[in-house]
Amino acid sequence: MTSSSRLGAVQSHLQMSACAAEEPKIKTPVESMAEERVKATFDVRELTYFLDGGEKFTKIREKFMMELERDPTFRMHDMYDVTKDQIRQRTMEKFRTIVHYVSAEPVPIFTMRMQTISLIDPGFWTRFGVHYGLFFGALRGSATSAQFSHWVSKGALALNGMVGCFAMTELGHGSNVAGLETTATFDEAADQFIIHTPTVTATKWWIGGAAHTATHTVAFAQLIVRGKRYGTKSFVVQLRDTHTYTLMPGVNIGDIGKKMGRDGIDNGWIQFTNVRIPRTNMLMKHTKVSRAGEVKEPPMAQLTYGALIQGRVAMVVDSGNIAKKAVTIAGRYAAVRRQFSSNPHNVQETKLIDYAIHQYRLMPLLAMAYAFHFTGVETNKLYDELMDKLESTQPNDDSMQEVIDTLKETHATSAGLKAFCTWSTLNAIEACRQTLGGHGYSAYTGLATTYNDFAVHCTWEGDNTILTLQSGRYLVSCYREALAGKTQPEGVSYLNHLISLLNLGCGVKSNEGILNFDVIQEAWNVVTANVVKKAGDDFENSIKQGLSPEAAFEECSQARLAAAKIHSFGYIFRRFAQAVNSAPEGLRPILTKVCLLYGLYSIEQNSGFFLQYRYFTPSQMDYVRSQVNVFCREVRQEYIPLIDAFNYSDYMINSPLGVYDGNIYEKYFDQVKRQNPVGGEHPYLPLIQSLLRRNIEDDEPLEDEDDDDE
Amino acid sequence: MTSSSRLGAVQSHLQMSACAAEEPKIKTPVESMAEERVKATFDVRELTYFLDGGEKFTKIREKFMMELERDPTFRMHDMYDVTKDQIRQRTMEKFRTIVHYVSAEPVPIFTMRMQTISLIDPGFWTRFGVHYGLFFGALRGSATSAQFSHWVSKGALALNGMVGCFAMTELGHGSNVAGLETTATFDEAADQFIIHTPTVTATKWWIGGAAHTATHTVAFAQLIVRGKRYGTKSFVVQLRDTHTYTLMPGVNIGDIGKKMGRDGIDNGWIQFTNVRIPRTNMLMKHTKVSRAGEVKEPPMAQLTYGALIQGRVAMVVDSGNIAKKAVTIAGRYAAVRRQFSSNPHNVQETKLIDYAIHQYRLMPLLAMAYAFHFTGVETNKLYDELMDKLESTQPNDDSMQEVIDTLKETHATSAGLKAFCTWSTLNAIEACRQTLGGHGYSAYTGLATTYNDFAVHCTWEGDNTILTLQSGRYLVSCYREALAGKTQPEGVSYLNHLISLLNLGCGVKSNEGILNFDVIQEAWNVVTANVVKKAGDDFENSIKQGLSPEAAFEECSQARLAAAKIHSFGYIFRRFAQAVNSAPEGLRPILTKVCLLYGLYSIEQNSGFFLQYRYFTPSQMDYVRSQVNVFCREVRQEYIPLIDAFNYSDYMINSPLGVYDGNIYEKYFDQVKRQNPVGGEHPYLPLIQSLLRRNIEDDEPLEDEDDDDE
Repeated sequence: MTSSSRLGAVQSHLQMSACAAEEPKIKTPVESMAEERVKATFDVRELTYFLDGGEKFTKIREKFMMELERDPTFRMHDMYDVTKDQIRQRTMEKFRTIVHYVSAEPVPIFTMRMQTISLIDPGFWTRFGVHYGLFFGALRGSATSAQFSHWVSKGALALNGMVGCFAMTELGHGSNVAGLETTATFDEAADQFIIHTPTVTATKWWIGGAAHTATHTVAFAQLIVRGKRYGTKSFVVQLRDTHTYTLMPGVNIGDIGKKMGRDGIDNGWIQFTNVRIPRTNMLMKHTKVSRAGEVKEPPMAQLTYGALIQGRVAMVVDSGNIAKKAVTIAGRYAAVRRQFSSNPHNVQETKLIDYAIHQYRLMPLLAMAYAFHFTGVETNKLYDELMDKLESTQPNDDSMQEVIDTLKETHATSAGLKAFCTWSTLNAIEACRQTLGGHGYSAYTGLATTYNDFAVHCTWEGDNTILTLQSGRYLVSCYREALAGKTQPEGVSYLNHLISLLNLGCGVKSNEGILNFDVIQEAWNVVTANVVKKAGDDFENSIKQGLSPEAAFEECSQARLAAAKIHSFGYIFRRFAQAVNSAPEGLRPILTKVCLLYGLYSIEQNSGFFLQYRYFTPSQMDYVRSQVNVFCREVRQEYIPLIDAFNYSDYMINSPLGVYDGNIYEKYFDQVKRQNPVGGEHPYLPLIQSLLRRNIEDDEPLEDEDDDDE
Repeated sequence: MTSSSRLGAVQSHLQMSACAAEEPKIKTPVESMAEERVKATFDVRELTYFLDGGEKFTKIREKFMMELERDPTFRMHDMYDVTKDQIRQRTMEKFRTIVHYVSAEPVPIFTMRMQTISLIDPGFWTRFGVHYGLFFGALRGSATSAQFSHWVSKGALALNGMVGCFAMTELGHGSNVAGLETTATFDEAADQFIIHTPTVTATKWWIGGAAHTATHTVAFAQLIVRGKRYGTKSFVVQLRDTHTYTLMPGVNIGDIGKKMGRDGIDNGWIQFTNVRIPRTNMLMKHTKVSRAGEVKEPPMAQLTYGALIQGRVAMVVDSGNIAKKAVTIAGRYAAVRRQFSSNPHNVQETKLIDYAIHQYRLMPLLAMAYAFHFTGVETNKLYDELMDKLESTQPNDDSMQEVIDTLKETHATSAGLKAFCTWSTLNAIEACRQTLGGHGYSAYTGLATTYNDFAVHCTWEGDNTILTLQSGRYLVSCYREALAGKTQPEGVSYLNHLISLLNLGCGVKSNEGILNFDVIQEAWNVVTANVVKKAGDDFENSIKQGLSPEAAFEECSQARLAAAKIHSFGYIFRRFAQAVNSAPEGLRPILTKVCLLYGLYSIEQNSGFFLQYRYFTPSQMDYVRSQVNVFCREVRQEYIPLIDAFNYSDYMINSPLGVYDGNIYEKYFDQVKRQNPVGGEHPYLPLIQSLLRRNIEDDEPLEDEDDDDE
């Protein structure tokens, strides 16, 4: 018997004796959890199937969760204590497992596998995505078919013989790709490009996989031919010998080092000093440079919206998934943790979740997780449909303009949603972490790391503020088009009824009438139309004052930000309500409550706009506030079954406070002891001994002789 | 010449050649920063003196900053890469330096030293506070004078021979001290207490200093004498032999392990199994247990407000200091970083800070940092005055009731402010981090660690939600007293004019009239009075429906939360405005702008309440919004001088993006290279080689023989 299992036995014994001595009314943690499950008025399993898109997909996800849990390279319980080097080693070990499925599984199934992995190990998910999403994706999107075949034959698809990274951002340049400084100068005599880093700020920076792994990169550089600049293009550059891993001549690479999270990714910096590559290493699907140095630019700017939208939709989906995880941990803890007593006659303290304020902290986040889930599903579907339509429509088809309008709308909406959902989820993780009290500060309870891993979502694939402004800019354009009589696509269709919406107040007679999807949707439409109008009017005023369109957009940026945010709220509510209306009958009552809570809480949080544009009166707003409390209480009744329906295994949750059975304290204590065994070596015994045993008489000064005279 | 300095030389050379080749208009990072400093319309040094409370205190702070920077145990540049064990070793090394000043410096000066340290090394600050603030503070507050002398003679003050920790919270019990499970049972025969941990959830948890350092603890336990329970009292328990550091019999201690931040603190868990201590180890200033087992309880519950208020005021001060640090980093980066061009004729990209939206992201946070600074200073002063008054007032004095009323008000307000300021600062750190774009995700740029270190402030010394509710509860009580005609103290004096305030609208004729401290203050008073009334009315309604006062308070908790939050906004604005009015004449114009920005932005963020209670009309609110932009632009003009006035040295900022001279890219690159030297050992070469060189033919299946028939 090890000392730690002996300790466990003693503790169990102590706890049993304690229980036996206490009154029978006292509920154990496990009992406290169990009593929550009997409250369900709906079939939890049916809700899981509905969330997953059908029983078949639930089964696939469960298969993935089991495979991951049993895979030794995916052991996660000790992840909070590993060093940066160790976590990177593990990342490489996992590669070996997962690369097997790249060829063995159809793409949609493999995508689901990776989605599952993203929840338990976001660092690995990203690291894997660097090769297949960014490097290989760049080849697919920008290489000619001959080039593409060439790199596949070198092993780019099988990850055999080579592995890639994606060198876009530089130390001094992020969002503005056109401003990158790295140069690719054509040397006609040698039929080569010279890739060069001219300044410190041109150093390639944050390049995932560069520090220790990648043999090749797709580098973004300014194409210069015969002294003329043609803008930023992409080039395949070999970084290391594929056998010895020594750096290629002219290539200097270093480790970016410690990050806020996702340390499993070996981000690096790269400096090129006159590195020569064959001309044919430039990816020439669009712009071409011939042997003779003729540059042929594509007839029209490429529609690259597709790839951007895909990445952003994926982050909306990830936001929903991570929000569900955070709410699972905080929600299960709140069903077990007890604190004070709200009733002096109770023997036992009150569950956190039975306090009104705790319901107010958690239930809106649970509703948000559902809202983001359905938004992710619907947005994904819309994206797939759109891409199908785009492929099947010919440039000359009558419907082409409509498809392009939808594409633009989806591009703008997905930009706004990516920002909105990642910001909201980051806040939700922190809010959930704080509901764990002091335990939220322990690494082992999971949400601190979740926060640190998730935070980067607010910056990459488009900085959230910039994306929100883009979305707002689109809304201003739509508003101006709508004013001019042009019909707007579905996502912004409220602008088609602009005049009738702008001065609309809530027409319902009774307060209860507000508790209705259509009324709430109308409320958002009215407010969004007004906020968009405000941004549009600000823009017009600036134009009238003689500003350029660019300067006018800049001038109304605060209004654009507000417009895009409010637009996202309304959009998400609509997606959620649509999903509820399409749910199986048995699930509709509970989902209706959750959706109403989301709608009412969102209105409360933005009450200023609803009062400003007089959709609600102050007394109706008071009613909305009071109903937020009512619906928090309603949803609280079945909140554990609602969380269970997310169907994350304990392994996926990876937090002792979020375990299914509610046995939180024992599992938490076990985790702490396993990671920090009692009786290990003392990390600084001599230091503390020398402090406590120092000779403080040394500090005493020589007594002043004058004093002796007294 | 080392390889890294050679690299630096090459880079400098590259940069110089690049500069030489470019147009003369291009500004270097250092020039970009320098041009911001000439914009100051005020004397930066004078503002520093004003912030610090006078030139004398500025000089003392500068002395501390220099001493820390030159002290090898306080080297901070590599802190982002050290392990948990290493950082704890450093903590012990620092003890040796700082303990010297405990006796060498007067308390107010030593407090300033520790405040300076809290900014650069919050983990050490807390770790030091565990002994002197918690352990020694408990002796001072709860020991009899004989007991106090005893422990001082053992070395508790000199930190010689013993070091203490403070064992209050348990695995299953945090905020509710009365619900702790650890028992202290009097054994009359032996004249001893038996300290015992009866269950797993009774395990002492989060105890700072327990894991490896403390020889003694003050433990909170349920006093049981002759079978009767007397509630939670405190007991000195020896944990380890003071020479060998072996655990005392019956004491079991483990390491809590990895945390979100502040890993320099060796938090531990403690289990007592029938540990015997002398009866006289119970701290008996208040409750006494005699040799014969007689328990003598104090005549009245002790006024322990004082110590609580002090801790909370300290966290308000810390919030201001950390907010200033975060704004310094984000602000200086924004003066140097360039991105896109807002003007097509510009050769160089535009500074981040010249975008309206970036001003909107940062300037209100700068204003908030000033607001919190002045609130901290004023609150500190009020606290000191109050304590002086409390000491000089006798229980029978006529003025005693007034002092107690002020004490209660300060207690409630400081609880609300602690929550408000720590929450706002945590959000501000993250917002600042995000303005650094991708670089905010690097550990070396500092704000990720700042976030992780700061986050615990929202939980300890009173969970923020619980504190806010307490503050709201006090406001409801004041409201009811005010209704009954009782005059309320200064901090809530708006309740003395309740009736006239409740239906007051903004009386100013012109929009410009809103830009006035008195009008903004009145706006907050009106709205706060209304929000407090709402909470009070909710409470009364519940009482009328037959609920107990406890249940009624519970019922109105959402309204209490809102009331406390709005009260804090108004309170902070008043403190800020008062400070501006007392500022030297030369500083008043700029500080007035900053203060108006704070007031207007706060109103915009809470517009729902101002419209709900009709203080502002929708068109006035539009004006407020527009003026937020105007004042962001105004403050932006001098924002670098405003940041410089905080007077934090580069060492204190500890982020290459926040350096004074603006040479951010070189210093950032140097930092990354120093911490991650080029050409170090590869952490997983065999792994990557075996992945890329695996025999993929192994994966190919045997061909199906049937196919051969075709």
